[in-house]
Amino acid sequence: MKGISPNQLTASQARALIAEDRLTAREIVAASLSRIRERDCEIGAWLSINENALSEADRLDALPKDQRGRLHGLPIAVKDVFDTFDLPTTHNSPLYSGFQPAADAPAVELLRLEGAIILGKTDTTEFAACGNDAATANPHDTTRTPGGSSAGSAAAVADFQATLALATQTGGSTIRPASFCGIYGMKPSAGLVSREGVKVYSVSFDTVGWYGRSVEDLALMADVYGITEMLDGSRESTDTLKIGISFGPHRDRLELESISALETTATRLREGGHDVTFLNFPAEFGALDLFHRTILHREGAAAFRTLARRFGSVLHEDFHHRVENRDNRSLSDWTTALDGAARAQMTFDNIASGFDMIVVPSAPGVAPVGRKPGDPVLNAMWTLLRVPCINIPVPMVDVAMPIGVTLTSMRYNDVALLKGAAKIAPLLDPRMDKEWQIPL
Amino acid sequence: MKGISPNQLTASQARALIAEDRLTAREIVAASLSRIRERDCEIGAWLSINENALSEADRLDALPKDQRGRLHGLPIAVKDVFDTFDLPTTHNSPLYSGFQPAADAPAVELLRLEGAIILGKTDTTEFAACGNDAATANPHDTTRTPGGSSAGSAAAVADFQATLALATQTGGSTIRPASFCGIYGMKPSAGLVSREGVKVYSVSFDTVGWYGRSVEDLALMADVYGITEMLDGSRESTDTLKIGISFGPHRDRLELESISALETTATRLREGGHDVTFLNFPAEFGALDLFHRTILHREGAAAFRTLARRFGSVLHEDFHHRVENRDNRSLSDWTTALDGAARAQMTFDNIASGFDMIVVPSAPGVAPVGRKPGDPVLNAMWTLLRVPCINIPVPMVDVAMPIGVTLTSMRYNDVALLKGAAKIAPLLDPRMDKEWQIPL
Repeated sequence: MKGISPNQLTASQARALIAEDRLTAREIVAASLSRIRERDCEIGAWLSINENALSEADRLDALPKDQRGRLHGLPIAVKDVFDTFDLPTTHNSPLYSGFQPAADAPAVELLRLEGAIILGKTDTTEFAACGNDAATANPHDTTRTPGGSSAGSAAAVADFQATLALATQTGGSTIRPASFCGIYGMKPSAGLVSREGVKVYSVSFDTVGWYGRSVEDLALMADVYGITEMLDGSRESTDTLKIGISFGPHRDRLELESISALETTATRLREGGHDVTFLNFPAEFGALDLFHRTILHREGAAAFRTLARRFGSVLHEDFHHRVENRDNRSLSDWTTALDGAARAQMTFDNIASGFDMIVVPSAPGVAPVGRKPGDPVLNAMWTLLRVPCINIPVPMVDVAMPIGVTLTSMRYNDVALLKGAAKIAPLLDPRMDKEWQIPL
Repeated sequence: MKGISPNQLTASQARALIAEDRLTAREIVAASLSRIRERDCEIGAWLSINENALSEADRLDALPKDQRGRLHGLPIAVKDVFDTFDLPTTHNSPLYSGFQPAADAPAVELLRLEGAIILGKTDTTEFAACGNDAATANPHDTTRTPGGSSAGSAAAVADFQATLALATQTGGSTIRPASFCGIYGMKPSAGLVSREGVKVYSVSFDTVGWYGRSVEDLALMADVYGITEMLDGSRESTDTLKIGISFGPHRDRLELESISALETTATRLREGGHDVTFLNFPAEFGALDLFHRTILHREGAAAFRTLARRFGSVLHEDFHHRVENRDNRSLSDWTTALDGAARAQMTFDNIASGFDMIVVPSAPGVAPVGRKPGDPVLNAMWTLLRVPCINIPVPMVDVAMPIGVTLTSMRYNDVALLKGAAKIAPLLDPRMDKEWQIPL
C-alpha cells in the first residue's frame, strides 16, 4: 500500500493491515487527525473532535489480538444527533449548544465495544430534520452541499478525514449525501438497528445508517449490528444477477446526470454479464412521497412539541410548522398514509422478489450549489417502504461531480443485497475518472 | 371536600381547588409524601423520591395565576424508564443502578413545563420488557401483583400516593395494571406522544401512557400532550352511544371475573340507555397476538444487542433470548407479522367506524398472586392495531379485587373516545363496592 496514506484506506484494507502488524491504530488516527487539521477550515465537517482519540488508539494498540473487536482501531465519525458520553451532542441546534449526554446511544456504544475510535461528531441539518442547515462543504466542490442531513459524516468519509461514519435517514439523509459525495452508504431495513439515544424526528422512519469507501466496509458495519441473517425464501443468487432498473415514479424530477447514471449503470451491468430489465412501478407509487411527508410531519409534531413549548420563537419556525400542523394534514390523512404505505410495502416486496436487486436514482442530480440538504423526493419512498438501500457511486467521464445509484430489495433482504452490491460495485465504480480523486 | 385528604383528590378536583385558593401545591405534595412514608414499606411503588418536591411546590405556589400551567402543582409519579435530569433512571435494572441522565425525556419535561411536580420514579419490570419483576405490591391485596410493567405507577395512583402517573405500553403495560389496580389508564394511538428519552424495547409498539383517578384526569393529560383534534369523518356522537362489546379472539383465556366485567358493562350501559351490541371479530384476529410477539422479539433484538454485548451473562437471560432470536422467528415471519398487522388495522378501523366505541377485556382476570406482571394476551393486539385504549374500572359486588374493561376505537379517534368514556364512566364505575376503598 505504498504511497497511500492510512486515512485513505477502506476499513477493510485497514483491518487487514492492522491484523498483519503493518498498521497501528495510532497511525490511522494520527493520519485522519492530520487530514482534519489540514482541511477542516475548508470542509467544516465537524462540530467536535475527540481529544482522546490518540490515547484511545494507544490503548487499543496495546490490546492482545484475541481481545480485539471487529472495528479495532478504526476512526469513525458520528453524526451529532447520536448521544455520546464523552462529546457534546448538539444536533446542530443553538438550543443544545454544549449539551453533554450521560451515555452513548447503543448504536455508538456497540462500535466502541468493537474497538472503534469515535473521532468526533459531525455537522447535520438541525435535529436531522429541518431548521438550520449544516455548514459543511462538499469536498469535491466547496461551493456545493455534501447533502443533508448527514452532511458532515458524508463529507468526512469522502474527504478521507474518517474511515467510516454513522448517519441517519428519515427521508433521504443517508443515501443522498452518499450520492453527492461519491461514497458508499447504507440504510438498512427498518427495525434492525437500535435508535435509542438518537434524536427523534419520525418514529416510523428514523433509521441508523452508515458510510464507508466500499461495499465491504458497509457489510462490516452491518455485521457489527447483527445484520447477518439471510431472508428466508429469498432468491438463490447465481453468477448472473437479475436486476431491475427503474427511474421510479418521479422521472420528471430527474436531472440529466441522474438519468445518465442509471443508463450507465444498465450498460455497465449488461457488459458485466448481468440480466438487466427496465421497470415501471404501479401508478399508485406516485402517492408514496405524499404519504411519507404526511406521516413525517404528524410524527414530527410529537417529536418537537416539548421544544416548541419550552423555547417558543427561539426554536426555528420549521419545527413550529410541524407542531402546529400548518399544512393541515388531518388525522384521517395520517391513517390513509399509513395504510397506503403498508399496501405499497407488500406490492414492492412482491415486485422485488423477482429480482436480485432493484436499482433506482439516489438523488435528482449532482449536489447543488449552496448548503441546503437537497431534495429527498427520490429517497423518501424507500424509507417509507422499510427496505434496505445502498448507494454506489457511478463515476462518468463527462460528469464532474459524483453521482450514485440506489440498490434496493425486499424488506429484510439486507444480507443478500450487500452480497449483490459487492459483486456489481467494481462494474459501476471503476473510478476511471480522475476528477473523482480528491487531492491528498 | 371535607374529610378527603388532598392526595385522594382527582387531578381535576385538585386543579379546581387550587384555582379557588382552597388548596396549595405544598398541601397536596405534603399529603402525598406523607402517604408514601406511611405505605411505602408495604407497597414498594418507588425506586426514588424527589427530595425537592416540597420546595418545587413552594415555588409553584408563589407563581401568579396567569403564569400557571395546566398541571400546576399536581404530583406525578414517573415510571423509571423515562429519563429525568434530577433523579436516577434505573429501568429497575442492576446494570443502571444510580444512572443519572443529563436531561428529561420530552414527555416528562412537558409535564414540568405545565407545572407538574415529578414526585419520584416508580418500579417497573426491567426495561419495561422482561427480566426482573417489579417488587411492588397491589394496594388492594399486597400478596398480589399490581400488574406490569408499569407496576409502581399504577400502585402509586391506586394507593393515593400520587395524583397522576406516567406509564408505558408495549404489550399491555399501561392498561393491565390499571385493571388490576382499579384505576383509570390511557394508552393513546401510536405516534401521538414523544418517546424520546424513554427506554426502547419495540420501536413499533412502545407508547407513553398515563394513569389517573377519572376520565377527566386522562383527558387533562391528553390535552397537555396535544391530543385535542377530532378524527375527521368520525361518527357524530349522540346522547345514546352505539357501543360494541366483544370478548375478543381469546375468550378461552378469560377468567370468570373478566367475563362478568364485560357482562356487567353491557348491563350497566343498557340501563344507562345506550345501544349495546355483542360482536365477534374476524377469525384472522386470532393471529394478532403472534404477530405482536414476532415484531416485539425481533425489534427487541436490536434494542438489547448492545447491552448483551457489553454485559454478557450479567444481563438477564430474557434479553439474550431476544438478541439471539431463540424462538427462531425468521425475517419472513417478521414481514408476515407486519403485513398482517397492517391489514388488521384497516379491518378493525372499518369495524370500529360503525360504533362510538368498542369494549373489550383489559386482562384475563383479576390480579394474580405474586409479582409477575401478568399475561398481556388481552392487550397486545390493541397495541399492534395502534388504537387508543382506556381502562375503566368496573367494580362488582361479588368480586373483591378490582377489574376493568378497555374502551377502544379507530386509530386517532382518541378525543371522541375520551368524550365517550367520560359519558359512560359513571355508569360503569359507581364505586358501590366498599371493598374498593383503600383505607386512608
